[in-house]
Amino acid sequence: MTKTNPGRFFEDYRLGDVIRHATPRTVAEGERALYHALYPSRFALHSSDAFAAECGLDGAPMDDLIAFHTVFGKTVPDISLNAVANLGYAEGRFLRPVMPGDTLRSESEVIGLKQNSNGKSGIVWVRTRGLNQMDEVVLSYVRWVMVRKRDADAPAPDTHVPDLEKAVPAGDLTIPDGLSFADYDFELAGEAHRASDYEAGERIDHVDAVTIEEAEHMMATRLWQNTAKVHFDATNREDGRRLIYGGHVISLARALSFNGLANAQCIAAINAGAHANPSFAGDTVRAWSEVREVAKLRDDVGALRLRTVATRGTPFELTGEDGKYLPDVLLDLDYWVLMPA
Amino acid sequence: MTKTNPGRFFEDYRLGDVIRHATPRTVAEGERALYHALYPSRFALHSSDAFAAECGLDGAPMDDLIAFHTVFGKTVPDISLNAVANLGYAEGRFLRPVMPGDTLRSESEVIGLKQNSNGKSGIVWVRTRGLNQMDEVVLSYVRWVMVRKRDADAPAPDTHVPDLEKAVPAGDLTIPDGLSFADYDFELAGEAHRASDYEAGERIDHVDAVTIEEAEHMMATRLWQNTAKVHFDATNREDGRRLIYGGHVISLARALSFNGLANAQCIAAINAGAHANPSFAGDTVRAWSEVREVAKLRDDVGALRLRTVATRGTPFELTGEDGKYLPDVLLDLDYWVLMPA
Amino acid sequence: MTKTNPGRFFEDYRLGDVIRHATPRTVAEGERALYHALYPSRFALHSSDAFAAECGLDGAPMDDLIAFHTVFGKTVPDISLNAVANLGYAEGRFLRPVMPGDTLRSESEVIGLKQNSNGKSGIVWVRTRGLNQMDEVVLSYVRWVMVRKRDADAPAPDTHVPDLEKAVPAGDLTIPDGLSFADYDFELAGEAHRASDYEAGERIDHVDAVTIEEAEHMMATRLWQNTAKVHFDATNREDGRRLIYGGHVISLARALSFNGLANAQCIAAINAGAHANPSFAGDTVRAWSEVREVAKLRDDVGALRLRTVATRGTPFELTGEDGKYLPDVLLDLDYWVLMPA
Repeated sequence: MTKTNPGRFFEDYRLGDVIRHATPRTVAEGERALYHALYPSRFALHSSDAFAAECGLDGAPMDDLIAFHTVFGKTVPDISLNAVANLGYAEGRFLRPVMPGDTLRSESEVIGLKQNSNGKSGIVWVRTRGLNQMDEVVLSYVRWVMVRKRDADAPAPDTHVPDLEKAVPAGDLTIPDGLSFADYDFELAGEAHRASDYEAGERIDHVDAVTIEEAEHMMATRLWQNTAKVHFDATNREDGRRLIYGGHVISLARALSFNGLANAQCIAAINAGAHANPSFAGDTVRAWSEVREVAKLRDDVGALRLRTVATRGTPFELTGEDGKYLPDVLLDLDYWVLMPA
Repeated sequence: MTKTNPGRFFEDYRLGDVIRHATPRTVAEGERALYHALYPSRFALHSSDAFAAECGLDGAPMDDLIAFHTVFGKTVPDISLNAVANLGYAEGRFLRPVMPGDTLRSESEVIGLKQNSNGKSGIVWVRTRGLNQMDEVVLSYVRWVMVRKRDADAPAPDTHVPDLEKAVPAGDLTIPDGLSFADYDFELAGEAHRASDYEAGERIDHVDAVTIEEAEHMMATRLWQNTAKVHFDATNREDGRRLIYGGHVISLARALSFNGLANAQCIAAINAGAHANPSFAGDTVRAWSEVREVAKLRDDVGALRLRTVATRGTPFELTGEDGKYLPDVLLDLDYWVLMPA
Repeated sequence: MTKTNPGRFFEDYRLGDVIRHATPRTVAEGERALYHALYPSRFALHSSDAFAAECGLDGAPMDDLIAFHTVFGKTVPDISLNAVANLGYAEGRFLRPVMPGDTLRSESEVIGLKQNSNGKSGIVWVRTRGLNQMDEVVLSYVRWVMVRKRDADAPAPDTHVPDLEKAVPAGDLTIPDGLSFADYDFELAGEAHRASDYEAGERIDHVDAVTIEEAEHMMATRLWQNTAKVHFDATNREDGRRLIYGGHVISLARALSFNGLANAQCIAAINAGAHANPSFAGDTVRAWSEVREVAKLRDDVGALRLRTVATRGTPFELTGEDGKYLPDVLLDLDYWVLMPA
């Protein structure tokens, strides 16, 4: 009997199953420093205990994407080891800040199954929850992947496609307990723009660009204990390059978006996301955003629904005449951020 | 007078000498995060304060190899600056967990000397101890190296070859104070296998593979304040590659061994180790293990004596017809791990 | 209206203006660990809480250059985004140790302006102060840069060239509160030399060498939230290399200087500094120092005024027959260090 993990195949998933993922992880000042070394992030709330305290928190929470990557990484051995494709995200909700010293673990519920017509693979939908050491849910999201079957003759499960929201409604966004932007220091945060200064349809070129090195994306991906072989093993491809974890590009795009969105202090929801094309070391990544909605949640707190696109090409170019993503587009992310109203 | 350190030569060592090494070092959450970024480690006890607390500890200790590398790095300027070869390890014992915030220092006692017949070099055996800020020994190990003589005419010392154990006996292994596997959560740890599920002679291919980049092994080696020039200076070789610190390969192999040995939570002893061939950036490292002994230390705690081999070739291949290591074998490590009985 | 930061041009600066820079930053154990991973630093005071406690401090302060880089990085978007050249440093004073958990922010006062005769650019002098969360100044320095004009027709300001000290006088150096070298452990620090063992004119070749990788200098520069595009964007140059942040070379030189200056525990002042030539990945950096002055500040505390030169060439070579820096010289730094008297 082999003692190593072969991963799950399509026929191993049952609707309603809840999978508790290994390995729990305490995140702290070290992960925060590495996040700053790996991504050009400058959002003040996650950078400064003093700034966070003036916004009503006990100290600077871990970057929202540290929480996301840590929770996501744990799901890989159980969900995507035999995945052919990462198809989508929906209903991502950031429910509670993760503070230095918190321990995160993940569990995923199978909420949808649909065998492909070729009988060789199928689509699995899971709702993943990240929990802290008090068993509080810090974030949850739905993700669906195409997974191979071990045995093409295994019977197809009943098809169940979950009904997912196209976007989290503004009224459902969670404002972290205690957070207040009433005494917000715009100068220290880096820009003067409030949520009400943006308007739907507005586009922002985030100007800066970052070239990715192999060592960087591998260190990042290991940091989240995402050990999918394809990110680390140069013998998988003739050119020796390793496929970059899609979350690395999400973090790059979010960090680059500081220039023009410096007050977008928290990610409150992820509505949808597509890893449009694979990314490799040597890519120089740029980002641009389009404002989709502007919402006022409270007197002090507003929200923007953004489409942020990461590209190794020219900003604002997105799809070709065939409606498909252009080859240089890496990420198309639809999400909500919180900022001063 | 030069103020820089020329290192010690063979004739500078005296049997019984105790050398206190510079530089003391506090290790904490930052070193833990970097360890996770540099090595694909997923052992729960060192990853999660909550998991460690459920195993009876005050929190997650630093990875055992962080302690080893930190203690080892300090010895380099005094022991191996003029070394021609790193010949072996023996009697490595992990005696006490290192917790975040602990300060480590090292001292080495010269326990053996033997001049080579050519009169130009000799073998030095040292027992190195790592001590914390309370002067408690956290680990100790014997290492022997071949060191050049400054002056070939310097008289040979009396030959003294220490009598070393081939392996630390199971009965001598130290279980960390307070550690209990009585309520161990196998699901959260990642695998279901107890020590008693393994048997002597069993072989495990750890499946995963990691390609090494120059930036990664240099950051790791600096992190342990091991400043041996050969790891950092590209002008030493025509191809510009730098010799990788052998300990980097130990940590890679140990991390890769998670897949099949996820419950091997602690390293309790290092019985022997050979850096079979030098490793360089670009190498894709795989690992396999053979179980040598299975021991029960207590009702809840078992131990495995393992041979773990790191290779850039094919798992389970080890030596050629001449009995020598094959050129792709990088590391052959004999050690004890603790796991649920 | 664009929401991104175009940076300031020469005509945007007014004598006496004080610019508060974004983004405040909490530095802690994570930044300390990364500093050790990025630079081969072994100075005991910044490495060990226990050693620092024996020197009278509450624990190991953050490396002085962590404070410098963090404070400097924040000034980039406001001072040097449109800079053509970084011309010099003066009157750098380290006034208070930065401890793990402290939050730093920066502000700069415009203390000099001089339009160039071509009317297209001008020189701006700023005095930058780094402040902690108690609004205490932890360090200050003067820096001057050449900045482009947006509009060549903008009127020239009155010329004001500040009167700057050539070097901070020894009597003005600040000894950190509580610091005592009375019970200093030279063995644990790594060398036996006191300040009084050095003499003016003495030269030290620091022996070691480090080759720089793209991933390393980019991670370092991001860590200080210095996001100047030229350090990160490979599309700026045909060869794809990125200009290395000058501060990265300062930290490398300082770390290399351990070998021969192991007891130079604190940087007390920066008198002057020139980034003699640009540095790129692939450079193998060496360092040498010349002692310029030896001072006794107290019975236990002495100081050395040092010139430390970083080079990718041969130590002790500095300028050519034309008096200009040789092409392999990267850094020429004039500064004060504190060590046991």
